[in-house]
Amino acid sequence: MEFVIYMVKKINLKEKFSLFGDQWSPKIIAEIDDFHLKLAKLKGEFVWHSHNDEDELFLILKGTLNIQLRESELVLNEGELAIIPKGMEHKPICNEEVEVLLLEKKTIINTGNIENKKTIKELEWI
Amino acid sequence: MEFVIYMVKKINLKEKFSLFGDQWSPKIIAEIDDFHLKLAKLKGEFVWHSHNDEDELFLILKGTLNIQLRESELVLNEGELAIIPKGMEHKPICNEEVEVLLLEKKTIINTGNIENKKTIKELEWI
Repeated sequence: MEFVIYMVKKINLKEKFSLFGDQWSPKIIAEIDDFHLKLAKLKGEFVWHSHNDEDELFLILKGTLNIQLRESELVLNEGELAIIPKGMEHKPICNEEVEVLLLEKKTIINTGNIENKKTIKELEWI
Repeated sequence: MEFVIYMVKKINLKEKFSLFGDQWSPKIIAEIDDFHLKLAKLKGEFVWHSHNDEDELFLILKGTLNIQLRESELVLNEGELAIIPKGMEHKPICNEEVEVLLLEKKTIINTGNIENKKTIKELEWI
């Protein structure tokens, strides 16, 4: 006989952000069906990229994030979110550190169609 | 020839919460692949229910939400989240109004396996 025990724990976002300092390195904090919920700290400039198969949600928890698109740009402040649809090229930029919550299918690669030194193939759980 | 124009807009959570007042009636604010992102205002007591096929994320944006489980309970404050796995019975309760962000597969029904006067079959987009 096999018992499966589900432990449901609450997750405090501030506590989770206190556990890491590296930027552009999303950490997985939860899974919901085939999605991962992640936290990231961003500062500076990322690469232009797109995700062929995954929409990408950015919810800003601290700071201001600029997401450049080819024809426009988004300026997201705390309490604001945007969803970049699959296939759309985008490039996040910020002068000051931003704390962001990301939501994406588990299959996503952070740099999408580009592979470079910022590419992370196995994200860490915290 | 067909042109598809993606307009990516930012979404401000406070603005969206200002657009409705009804409680226990989640409003869809965005879709991410096969998921809906929703906002809800809760006050009082919901019904015991479970969702057979969908995990359910609760992220508290204002107030304190108690989620009763059969063997324990969660007390979620602002900036805290929990994921109720599919199949797990749960019952949200709160004395004061709570503002919550929900994330769930599009197929979910708010009252899960129970159908009663709180059941909403077609959620409104705001």
